[in-house]
Amino acid sequence: MSEVERVEYTPISVRETLIMMKDISELMIDLAYSAALFNNRELAEEVIELERKMDTLVYILNMNLMLAARDKDDAESLAGVAKVGSLTNSISDAAADIAGIVLNDIGIHPIVREVFQRTEEHLVRVKVSDDSFITGRTVDDLDLAAEVGADIIAIRRGRHWMIKPEKEIVLPEDVLLARGTASGLRKLARAAKGETKDLDGG
Amino acid sequence: MSEVERVEYTPISVRETLIMMKDISELMIDLAYSAALFNNRELAEEVIELERKMDTLVYILNMNLMLAARDKDDAESLAGVAKVGSLTNSISDAAADIAGIVLNDIGIHPIVREVFQRTEEHLVRVKVSDDSFITGRTVDDLDLAAEVGADIIAIRRGRHWMIKPEKEIVLPEDVLLARGTASGLRKLARAAKGETKDLDGG
Repeated sequence: MSEVERVEYTPISVRETLIMMKDISELMIDLAYSAALFNNRELAEEVIELERKMDTLVYILNMNLMLAARDKDDAESLAGVAKVGSLTNSISDAAADIAGIVLNDIGIHPIVREVFQRTEEHLVRVKVSDDSFITGRTVDDLDLAAEVGADIIAIRRGRHWMIKPEKEIVLPEDVLLARGTASGLRKLARAAKGETKDLDGG
Repeated sequence: MSEVERVEYTPISVRETLIMMKDISELMIDLAYSAALFNNRELAEEVIELERKMDTLVYILNMNLMLAARDKDDAESLAGVAKVGSLTNSISDAAADIAGIVLNDIGIHPIVREVFQRTEEHLVRVKVSDDSFITGRTVDDLDLAAEVGADIIAIRRGRHWMIKPEKEIVLPEDVLLARGTASGLRKLARAAKGETKDLDGG
């Protein structure tokens, strides 16, 4: 599915890597389902991006596990960790395959979609333009949850991802993934495009 | 992995089934990771229970899809939905395999576990005894989030599951899955055992 890239060794803790992999796989499922149910190609593309990130993390995890093993007891219990890593990768592969259904234009039947659109919570991908007032503000400062009923669940800057971003993160020019009510997300999207000067649409 | 059981046709909407499958797969990942990182067999057992539920749902989904298809256009787009269902099942299989690592006593190496235990959020399985003050109260009434900083993420009564339970649900005698701080979950566990008369430990 994804191209094979050379992954360089990065000294990052096994724990950090696993947690990141778990967060990414959960986000991928969320996005893949929303992509399928709303036939949303943008969300499907983000799933494929995350799949690349996951492939890199699996390599890095395995390198760090190899370096951590000093004797056969280590090797035995670290093999369990490697297995958890590879199973997490299978989860992300399945999510990427769901996204693939959307990108290959295999339509989702109306019996699923029509009813689903009544649901309250939605997911969107929003590109923040450089003339938007959002650019350069922090997650906390923007206070989307209180202002419009939306939450930023991930930020992507090129190939760099921040999943469940901290409140101090300064928002970038590029891509936000957000969850919220349909009207809240519409307000966020207009603000991100620079069409409005505040979240209320003024 | 799981025994094959005869599944009877249930007229439930395809949308409802898919959403339930998505929620279950996400819960399974969450529980499986916690089980692995804390070497918690109880959580691993719940993952295996959920896997059974998922297997049943896949059957029901496919039966309802077959009945919904009236012509070849229907069949084409419903095949996409069936594929999403089967991929969701793969996700749950991977989570069950992670739980299997725990149940088969393949230890998780301390380099993962030690550091992880510092994390703030934990997951536990709590059996509610019939003399606990929790039995018969509603999720809302108990207000765990405000009282002790814990959330009930699922309720199981025998083979019947409620994922993300509504606030009006009357809490059962049997099994709760909860997420929260270590101290909050300790208070909840003592209350569920009937050791305390309120959540403050009194």
